Amino acid sequence: METTRVGRTVDTDAVVLNGNARKLKHDEVVAEEPLELRLVASGTTRTLAITMRTPGNDFELAAGFLYDEAIVRAGDEIATIDYCIDPAIDPNQRYNIVNVELRTALADCARFERHFTTSSACGVCGRAQLESLRELGIVPIEDGLRIEPSLLYQLPERMRESQRVFASTGGLHAAALFDENGEMIAVREDVGRHNAVDKLVGWALLGGRIPLARTILMVSGRSSYEILQKSAMARIPIVCSVSAPSSLAIDLAREFKITLVGFLRGDRANVYAAPQRITSTA
Amino acid sequence: METTRVGRTVDTDAVVLNGNARKLKHDEVVAEEPLELRLVASGTTRTLAITMRTPGNDFELAAGFLYDEAIVRAGDEIATIDYCIDPAIDPNQRYNIVNVELRTALADCARFERHFTTSSACGVCGRAQLESLRELGIVPIEDGLRIEPSLLYQLPERMRESQRVFASTGGLHAAALFDENGEMIAVREDVGRHNAVDKLVGWALLGGRIPLARTILMVSGRSSYEILQKSAMARIPIVCSVSAPSSLAIDLAREFKITLVGFLRGDRANVYAAPQRITSTA
Repeated sequence: METTRVGRTVDTDAVVLNGNARKLKHDEVVAEEPLELRLVASGTTRTLAITMRTPGNDFELAAGFLYDEAIVRAGDEIATIDYCIDPAIDPNQRYNIVNVELRTALADCARFERHFTTSSACGVCGRAQLESLRELGIVPIEDGLRIEPSLLYQLPERMRESQRVFASTGGLHAAALFDENGEMIAVREDVGRHNAVDKLVGWALLGGRIPLARTILMVSGRSSYEILQKSAMARIPIVCSVSAPSSLAIDLAREFKITLVGFLRGDRANVYAAPQRITSTA
Repeated sequence: METTRVGRTVDTDAVVLNGNARKLKHDEVVAEEPLELRLVASGTTRTLAITMRTPGNDFELAAGFLYDEAIVRAGDEIATIDYCIDPAIDPNQRYNIVNVELRTALADCARFERHFTTSSACGVCGRAQLESLRELGIVPIEDGLRIEPSLLYQLPERMRESQRVFASTGGLHAAALFDENGEMIAVREDVGRHNAVDKLVGWALLGGRIPLARTILMVSGRSSYEILQKSAMARIPIVCSVSAPSSLAIDLAREFKITLVGFLRGDRANVYAAPQRITSTA
């Protein structure tokens, strides 16, 4: 399975499950890559933020972020916006680093200081994010876990039944943990999907349950990089969602052999990584 | 219109639009409040992160965040987790500050330094977030803008028609800006909803179009605090979404007189703040 970047989408392969049948198809997923936003003021360059984003309109993103965070208050405070042209940077990553040069010094630097990272790292990228996980000793999940497609198909409904707050407000994300038999172990809800997963992992950590071997994580909404990063840390071998995954989520899942299931609806699903854990009964 | 915190949900009032009819009803929305996570290690207390979350399972959220960010690698590195009991803190905010005390010094402090804020502020809260906007000179939006409900009902379909990447991947959020006649001015897509809004605001800033007076912002997904914060900065008077708003989004919208429309589907919608901009033809 290979991914190729094509602008704002990425071509990839997926195993399509339909009942007990399976076939391989090409699929298109949304590109997710880190953007490092650097501020150049009074001759100093500092990293202001690193955000996961879909490439495209990057200068607008940089300008809008600065305005929305009240770091610039008018367009004419910005002298230039450019991609980083430092030849020391991997050419593949140059379009993931944007330098914004201000016309004036920051009026009240202390007020923005919490935004600045102290890292002098020059250029982050998806690859570096995966490397940083490897440096923590995170290795691919090698287990003999196998589950039937029919078990997968039951998970969305089981999660929905337990979403008490969602039922009353329609405004919550949920993350649910199941055992290998499809029994729900725990569920957490939050306005932020990443918080719902952090709550689950915290529950496991405080209860001495990490690594979460032979479990299945189900999240509402999309599977992005951060959901897979948290799953890799907690050693969850299977991650499912009713919606689409991002390109970087797929990269991470393949690297660490996490089975990544998307569009899990009815008795259909797409498997984007480590499909060997889903048994073929055909 | 008043909001009352009731655990993980908040009771509120909304104007329900149904075609040209309108009525007032009680509604329940998901609670969104900031959580300040502080780390106590080697006798020093530092603010590690401030995250918007739904109250509940806060100690799990703190523990999971620390684990997922590789700041602790095992549960027994955590000595205690408590809400802040500093008597100097507003009692209403004590449950929005969690102190985690580690058993040992941080092994490699520099590695986590980017996480630490340098602010010594003791206790943030929803109220403080609104105050910080006021301190920037952001005032309520007072305009004579009036739009018909029928114009609102057309916006979701107009946005969907322009979402090119969503159509192919199912994985993107969108933010679209309309003029007061319902004509789309610009649309941006991103894997992150907040990025899509930043891109729109950046487009406006670089084109000399701020303040975005007499415009309507439509976002996919939910309306959270950050969407309304960005709208207040750009002076957008009407914000719509097809889904639910959070409690803090409603608070901010009411404070700054931004018309906040949720559950905009078919010829129905709920208006949670500043309903006077939606005309009553009945």
